[in-house]
Formats: sequence, structure tokens, C-alpha cells
Amino acid sequence: MADTSLKARYRQYLDCLNAQAWDRLGEFVAQEVVYNGEGIGLAGYRSMLERDYLTIPDLRFVSDLLLADPPWIACRLAFDCSPRGAFLGLETHGRRITFSEHVFYRFEQGRIVQVQSLIDEAAVRRAIAPP
Amino acid sequence: MADTSLKARYRQYLDCLNAQAWDRLGEFVAQEVVYNGEGIGLAGYRSMLERDYLTIPDLRFVSDLLLADPPWIACRLAFDCSPRGAFLGLETHGRRITFSEHVFYRFEQGRIVQVQSLIDEAAVRRAIAPP
Repeated sequence: MADTSLKARYRQYLDCLNAQAWDRLGEFVAQEVVYNGEGIGLAGYRSMLERDYLTIPDLRFVSDLLLADPPWIACRLAFDCSPRGAFLGLETHGRRITFSEHVFYRFEQGRIVQVQSLIDEAAVRRAIAPP
Repeated sequence: MADTSLKARYRQYLDCLNAQAWDRLGEFVAQEVVYNGEGIGLAGYRSMLERDYLTIPDLRFVSDLLLADPPWIACRLAFDCSPRGAFLGLETHGRRITFSEHVFYRFEQGRIVQVQSLIDEAAVRRAIAPP
């Protein structure tokens, strides 16, 4: 799969997340997906995303920077949202926060089989620090 | 610059860091380098690395995963080290810690001009949590 088609495929995956089209998630994520070293599988992946949207109703996945080096994708995601209650174990008090996530994805036959993700927790801490 | 040569160039940069060959840093990092949105310049970049080695004498930069999509490089770096004293503002008590860093680098004429880095602070916190 060429770079451009892998990037296009990844953008379709982000569209699927932003549409919360969970029934289509299996088109982009493999049954045996491994997330940060844990074999959570497609069902676990879907549950994780559904929980994310419960905590952050205005969640939106925006690619700020996208690299393709097949079979890998690397993406810097930029978030601008207002979590309800606790996020990453931190009480956000409903505040609007901006932070990024740096993620690597390995694709096999058009589906994500492995994810290595880091979220900028320090930015979240700074955003919700008491004034 | 082709993918392979950009990767080779990046590996030379890591070799330079691991050799602490600061006088050669300017071969790989541009004078006007911007790090996480801050225009720290080559001198600031060198100071940052020198401070890192003071805090972590056994620091070693190991590429765990490397993508090239010119002019960008994305790397997952794997660290296994024993900081002295505080690291990321956390008291490490001299413990050995393993954590990763997900970094994007933009190259211009063979030199790094922009860096976007995230360090896995949560892993550091877990590693140094009181037993």
C-alpha cells in the first residue's frame, strides 16, 4: 500500500471516530488489535472510545501532523475539548483543555493491528491547575 | 532526500547524542531550531541535552521505531536509565526507570529545524511511585 493510500485510509479511520460510527470501526481496526502493549481486541478498543466520548462529549480527532512509512502511520493529534469530570485521573472541573497525542499505528491489510500512544498529560495538568 | 538517507541521517544524530559529541551537534541541529514551540536555538538545544546528561549520567537514546516521510521523521525512543535526583520535576530516588518518548522532527538541508516531543510521564510516575 502506497504512502498516500495509507494516509487516506487513516483519515477515513479518523472520520469514523468523529462520526462515532462504532459499527464501522471493524473496517479500520483489526479484531486482534494491541493497544500500548495490551491485547484489548476490537471490542476493547470500541469500549475505550465509547468511554472517551462519555467523558468528553465534544471530543474531536484532528490530525495536526501525519506521516506514512508503510506499514506504519505516525500522527500528532490535536485536541481542544471540555471533559466532564475526571480525565486521565485528573479532575478537570469542566474546563476547556487543549493537548496533543503522539500515536504510532501499524496496519495490516488496511486495518490497525498495533497502536503505541502517548498523551500530553503535562498539558492537561497545566490546563486544570488551580489559578 | 530519500527516506533511507533521512533515516540514516537521524541515526547519525542519535549516535552524536550517545557520544555526547556536543561540538558536532550543529551538524545535525539548525541554529534556529524550535523545540515544542519554543525557539531555543542550537545553544539552548545543547544546554538542554547537557542538563539531561547531568541528571541522567547513563542516558542512552535508542530508537525503538523509526518512520521517515520527508521532510519529517517520527521516532519512538526507548529509555532505560537511572536519573540522579529529580526528573520531570519528580524525585526518582535513583531508581532505574524505563519510559518512552514519541518525537517528530522536521529536517531542512540535513538539519533538524523543528521538534515536537512527548515523554511518557505517566510511566515515570508509576516507576517511582512509593511501594
